[in-house]
Amino acid sequence: MKIITLLTDFGSFYPAQMKGVILSKLKVEDVTFVDIAHDIPPQDVRAGAFALLSSVAYFPQGTIHIAVVDPGVGTERLGIVVESGGQFFVGPDNGLLMPAAKSLGQPFAYKIACQLDASNTFHGRDVFAPVAAMVANGQSPSSIGPRVNPKDLSFGSPRRTDKGIETAVIYVDRFGNLILNIRKLPNGCFSLKGVRLRRVRTYAEVKRIEPLITIGSHGFAEIAVNQGNAADAFCLKAGDRIELEEI
Amino acid sequence: MKIITLLTDFGSFYPAQMKGVILSKLKVEDVTFVDIAHDIPPQDVRAGAFALLSSVAYFPQGTIHIAVVDPGVGTERLGIVVESGGQFFVGPDNGLLMPAAKSLGQPFAYKIACQLDASNTFHGRDVFAPVAAMVANGQSPSSIGPRVNPKDLSFGSPRRTDKGIETAVIYVDRFGNLILNIRKLPNGCFSLKGVRLRRVRTYAEVKRIEPLITIGSHGFAEIAVNQGNAADAFCLKAGDRIELEEI
Amino acid sequence: MKIITLLTDFGSFYPAQMKGVILSKLKVEDVTFVDIAHDIPPQDVRAGAFALLSSVAYFPQGTIHIAVVDPGVGTERLGIVVESGGQFFVGPDNGLLMPAAKSLGQPFAYKIACQLDASNTFHGRDVFAPVAAMVANGQSPSSIGPRVNPKDLSFGSPRRTDKGIETAVIYVDRFGNLILNIRKLPNGCFSLKGVRLRRVRTYAEVKRIEPLITIGSHGFAEIAVNQGNAADAFCLKAGDRIELEEI
Repeated sequence: MKIITLLTDFGSFYPAQMKGVILSKLKVEDVTFVDIAHDIPPQDVRAGAFALLSSVAYFPQGTIHIAVVDPGVGTERLGIVVESGGQFFVGPDNGLLMPAAKSLGQPFAYKIACQLDASNTFHGRDVFAPVAAMVANGQSPSSIGPRVNPKDLSFGSPRRTDKGIETAVIYVDRFGNLILNIRKLPNGCFSLKGVRLRRVRTYAEVKRIEPLITIGSHGFAEIAVNQGNAADAFCLKAGDRIELEEI
Repeated sequence: MKIITLLTDFGSFYPAQMKGVILSKLKVEDVTFVDIAHDIPPQDVRAGAFALLSSVAYFPQGTIHIAVVDPGVGTERLGIVVESGGQFFVGPDNGLLMPAAKSLGQPFAYKIACQLDASNTFHGRDVFAPVAAMVANGQSPSSIGPRVNPKDLSFGSPRRTDKGIETAVIYVDRFGNLILNIRKLPNGCFSLKGVRLRRVRTYAEVKRIEPLITIGSHGFAEIAVNQGNAADAFCLKAGDRIELEEI
Repeated sequence: MKIITLLTDFGSFYPAQMKGVILSKLKVEDVTFVDIAHDIPPQDVRAGAFALLSSVAYFPQGTIHIAVVDPGVGTERLGIVVESGGQFFVGPDNGLLMPAAKSLGQPFAYKIACQLDASNTFHGRDVFAPVAAMVANGQSPSSIGPRVNPKDLSFGSPRRTDKGIETAVIYVDRFGNLILNIRKLPNGCFSLKGVRLRRVRTYAEVKRIEPLITIGSHGFAEIAVNQGNAADAFCLKAGDRIELEEI
């Protein structure tokens, strides 16, 4: 059984076209599609990279991930296939794939050099889906094109300030939890916009509607409001920079 | 072929992690995932229980349902596996699973006692997904832990009032239809907030934008506005209590 | 392997009931479900027809498409099975299926005449899902009921005006791109509401936040704002009529 995941900012019906293309070209008998997300904020490569990074460790070897958040479609940006830790990644060479690929081991990236009859606006369907089918059919990534140095992407680093830590919101999940570019929270207590954040291991340690900070299930620091919505409460969204004040 | 359904309030990308875990641990060759819903209102256990209850009767024997709407994650609340009518349920012991399980027959519930390396915030991925994979691999629920009395959940009962019936909205679907905790509508005509509800068997019996009450396809009474949105029209949401006035 | 796609305006949890019914009735061992869209604007048959039309060319022969956008459920409107170009369509006879079916070849339509125990509000689950399972099990569409002339649906035609072209928005995708009922854009330059639309082959030809018009990946003209949202910028939605002014 081949497992193929899809992550895009396409919403509905475009991802189905990609699946149709793969199913039309697949020679193996059996495929399981897993939709990681199709509601990445439009063209937010960093949010897409975070969602992919959070997910790939849970998939078995041989899984093929197609990810398309692609503001540069139609430009000179390359398409790439990346192999890392026994899993495969197909998508634009804009950094989207790399945090996930690097989390699994040493990534090897190959330029998609084969001639494909591509539209100018939908490489997910016309380039990446056919290439994913090739990989699913057993073709080695190195046969698809020459080795390249892929573009990397950084979630940025938190920065020490006079008052505490400057950090960025990289993702807002459905609960309104604010996921930060911090993997190790320094000792101490923090407030955000003057509101104390209880530092906890689990949401249930705080009262209803009490703000908290914790290391989330994805390994990044996360600001949440227990049974509430931190993004609403603090008026924040993906991409915003914030200052955690030490108290 | 194993059928595994998922119902959560997670939105996107967390459910894919659960599927990845299941696919990594599955020994059977073939699985079909069916997403029941991932847009349950955050932490609304009752709405989740309704969506699960409405769905399970349509699935074949042997289906495994993982459901996670879990405001108590990280507390002492148990995780359980429930067997009923030849189907299986995995999730938190907060009542979420029980209306569905009871609708299929006499449920038998077992505490998830096995040691799992769980995060404090995401038991869907770290506890329930591995247990669902165990069940899919043929392990009997009774081998997973001791038998327990699971927590039940009630949708509440409609109550006779001077003027009519007090009832609660348990779910609002995508059309804005208001699903009530009434399974058998008493004879008579009803109005809501002064607006007459036409009592019909099918939406098409009323004119465009005319309010109606009917027994929905799920077996519960449902207030709708034909080709309109009753939740918007009456300013109501899941959890609201309303009075149907007899006219 | 059988491929079954689903397209509805149901949002969540109702489509899962349809899949459960199909899985319960299926005799073939293996099925792959592909969700085309469940977020079609409620009861917008034209938008559903567009999404289906855009998708079917990418699926292999033998694919079965169930599509349900069905404001007439419970009325006399027929249910039909359509065969065209080696693919199958199941749904209401309201035009929803026909642009897609006609795009694949000469369609043959059959009335769903078999007695099914149908609810009055949910034929997707009670009529179309069982019929799709019959077709997946190898039953020929012509055995399901007598041949009929299905209702057609038109996206309308653009109309020459004094100033340019009157056209209609048939779909708004997740990026806010406005998809028009124009398949061949006449020569010339156009503006919309006084704003010049750059005529391009790919979004990347324009600057950030610059409005453009192009032939989209679906073959229809599309107004977009590069890295922005044209529906918001021009205050337009599916169904709106607009005038493209020649400049």
